[in-house]
Order: sequence, then structure tokens, then C-alpha cells
Amino acid sequence: MITKIKIAEIKQLHQKKFRDESDLFLVEGTKSVLDLVNSNLATTELLATDQWLRLHESKLPKEISVLAVSEKEIERISCLKTPQEVLAVAVKPKYNLIDICDTEPILVLDDIRDPGNMGTIVRTADWFGFRQIVCSATSVEFTNPKTIQATMGSFSRVKIFYTDLVSFLNREKKRRKIYGTFMNGSDLAQITYTKNDILIVGNESNGISDDIADLVTEKIHIPSFALTESKAESLNASIAAAIVMYQYNS
Amino acid sequence: MITKIKIAEIKQLHQKKFRDESDLFLVEGTKSVLDLVNSNLATTELLATDQWLRLHESKLPKEISVLAVSEKEIERISCLKTPQEVLAVAVKPKYNLIDICDTEPILVLDDIRDPGNMGTIVRTADWFGFRQIVCSATSVEFTNPKTIQATMGSFSRVKIFYTDLVSFLNREKKRRKIYGTFMNGSDLAQITYTKNDILIVGNESNGISDDIADLVTEKIHIPSFALTESKAESLNASIAAAIVMYQYNS
Repeated sequence: MITKIKIAEIKQLHQKKFRDESDLFLVEGTKSVLDLVNSNLATTELLATDQWLRLHESKLPKEISVLAVSEKEIERISCLKTPQEVLAVAVKPKYNLIDICDTEPILVLDDIRDPGNMGTIVRTADWFGFRQIVCSATSVEFTNPKTIQATMGSFSRVKIFYTDLVSFLNREKKRRKIYGTFMNGSDLAQITYTKNDILIVGNESNGISDDIADLVTEKIHIPSFALTESKAESLNASIAAAIVMYQYNS
Repeated sequence: MITKIKIAEIKQLHQKKFRDESDLFLVEGTKSVLDLVNSNLATTELLATDQWLRLHESKLPKEISVLAVSEKEIERISCLKTPQEVLAVAVKPKYNLIDICDTEPILVLDDIRDPGNMGTIVRTADWFGFRQIVCSATSVEFTNPKTIQATMGSFSRVKIFYTDLVSFLNREKKRRKIYGTFMNGSDLAQITYTKNDILIVGNESNGISDDIADLVTEKIHIPSFALTESKAESLNASIAAAIVMYQYNS
């Protein structure tokens, strides 16, 4: 049985204010919850229906305790239009910049604001072997429910840092090349990358901000193949990030 | 002045039912509206604030008539959380399969359901020179307001067809290679494409459906570069579409 107070407490995590105060966040759906409980992140609550448990109990770590809930109760807590039969509360991981691996590449996000874009970028980074993402402090928090949803479990594998990008890039530029996408950059396919480069993706509307642009050492560009003069002016930020990470590996 | 009846009429276009009945759809925001009125699509209404008109009147075609509205009135009609100062009603274009160009590639969407994904795919197709998209009848309509928003004006340049994909692919397979992404396909970078290929992108959850998979002549795969065994299982559909179109041009 779950109490009304507990339902109300968990539901507060829809709001950033309460996520910030408690350092907790919501995770919904089978794929995301199973990735969470089998990761290094801490889970404080796992709520599931009996039916879900029957199907998935074998995939849960032994030490985890599950609170049995009804579909109605899950619906009351869920952020989703079509709630699933499982939901967890996780502790926000606190990654520290000293944990960044020197021999791996870094994806840098300069002010990504859309929660869906952030989540899609984390999922794509996981696919392409980018295990560290450094975000400007103004970027959307990755524990936003829409972001967690869009990562499809990748939030549990990719380390996401928030910091002042100017200081960060100033420190890193001694040991890494810093790539950023610009309209007047070189074709990204023509470039030879090294193993531990930094790739910067800019804001959805404004691209890479001026103070960050000054720190880019290599300007790159995703070529357009439009057949007519009238054409798309830009790509969605998560699409640009994906193409840059794909080409980096090629 | 705009009447209350006119406001109510336009606002109905938030709903698919009324878009279907009227063959009209809503377009919001400066970029999308300017792309619309300067395209081959027909505009039936253009609503703008005086301030917007002062800034953008020179970019409008001469023959178009503008209904002056207040910000409050636009807010009442808008689908957006942060309404912009311009909004148009457009006539749904009726593209016919006989208009498909034999010498250009085709992007095929097998049951894309998310309006945002659909819009992002249209925008990316425009960037990469894919001017024709053929969708299964079950795919989300591209005139959904969230789709139009995500295309950033590209809805006015890319031709989007809806049809039965099995019959369509059966006809086209005589003259085009048909590529589809599968977990067991060949690395898409290793393939030599021809100019008029078909690239198929599958549904967000289920990928390419079985009856369509049978018609794929070349199975391709986007390689993952994850460093650990535990990794993302898949890419978002709009990300997969983008990488396939990018590689196709490379």
C-alpha cells in the first residue's frame, strides 16, 4: 500500500523546484526503470503493479524493495499521457569535473533549452560512445521528466556535468581540440579528429554563444545538399549533435 | 478587426477533425509564415500585429491581404505556449504520386507517430536535399501544429505523400534500390548509393514493419560506438533518418 502523502511527495518531483530541493527525480517506464536499477545510480523508490512485477521481477537486483501499487495510483503520480506500470524515484548523481576522462571525447552543450532535445542528445551520445557531456549552467536540467523519457535509459550511463563553459574550455584547450559548428566552418567530413576532442553544440535558436565561439579552435559545418536556393536555414540541435558524433566516429 | 466567429473558426484547426474537414491548417511564427507565403502553397488568412507588419511587410508578396490583430487575439488562437505575433491559415497541398521525380531520392516513413519527430524529419530532409517524403497512411499528418512548428518552414518546400507503402514499394522496386535500417544490416558508410534510392525509416517503437521489411533490397545499420556492453538499444527515429540522409550524400 502507498499512502496519499507518499503519492503527493513523489508527484512534487514533476516540478523543478522540488527536484532541486530534494535532489531526487522521477523515472518512468520499463526500459528506463530497468536501466536505472541496474546502473550505479541510487534508487529510493520503486513502484510497480503486480502485473509488471510478474513480468520483470527477474531483471531487478535482489536487494531492491518494490512498493506494489495499482494502475490508478501510478496514473495519479505519472507525468505521461499514457502511464506505464512502473515508476521509480532516483537520486540525482553529482558528477564532478575531476571525474572527466582525459582520453575520451566530450560533448559540450551550450545552452540547450528544450527538454526533448536534451534527452535525445543524451541517448545519441550513449549510442556513439560519448560518455561525458558538459553543459552550460543555463542548459535544461537532464532530470526534467521529458528529458529522462527521451533518453530511453541512457541517463543512467552518460555522465552529465553542469559548469561555467568559459572556464572549463579555457582549461581544456591546452590538451584538446575544440570543434564547434558554424555556417562558415569547414566540411566536418574532411577533418581528422583525435581521440579526446571536444565537440560543441549550440542553442536551438542562437547557436554557439559569442564567448564560447571565441574558444573554438576548429570551426566545422554540416554541408547542406538542398537543390534549390530556398531551403532550410539550419538543423535541429539534436540532429546537428548526432551528425557531428556520427562523423567523429567515421 | 477580427470577429469572434473567425477566431473560433481558426482555433478549430488545432483539432485534426477540423483540419480534415476543411483541408486547412495553421502556421505560426515569423520563419514559418514567411516561408509559407513565399511558397507555392495557398494561404487563406494572414493575421499579424501592427508591430510585426512594420518589421516584415517588405518580405510579404504584394497580393496578400493581412488582417490586423492584437497580441491578445493571437494568443487566443495560438497553439504555442509563447505565441508569436503572426499566424496564417494555409490550404493542405494535395500531392499526387505521379508527381514523384524519378531521378531524385525518396525518404519513406513507415508509421512515424510523434508529431515532433515528423517535423524534425521534414526539416532535416529539406537540409539534405530530399524533396519527396512518402509516408504510410498510419503516419502522423504533417499538418499537425507541432509538426509544422518543428519543420521550421520546411513543410513549404518538401512534398509529403501518404499512401499504402506495400503497393508503392512494389511499384518502385523495379527502378530504385530500397534501403532500410535494421540491427543486422551492413554499415551504412560502406555502401555506394545511387541517385534515386529509397531510404526507409521505421516506427519509433517497432522499427520497420514486417510487410515493408520484405520489400527492402538493402539492409543497412548505423554502427554504435558504445564503449561498454550496457548501452543505448536504439536511436530516435528522427536521428536515424538524419544520419542515413547525411551518409547518403557523403
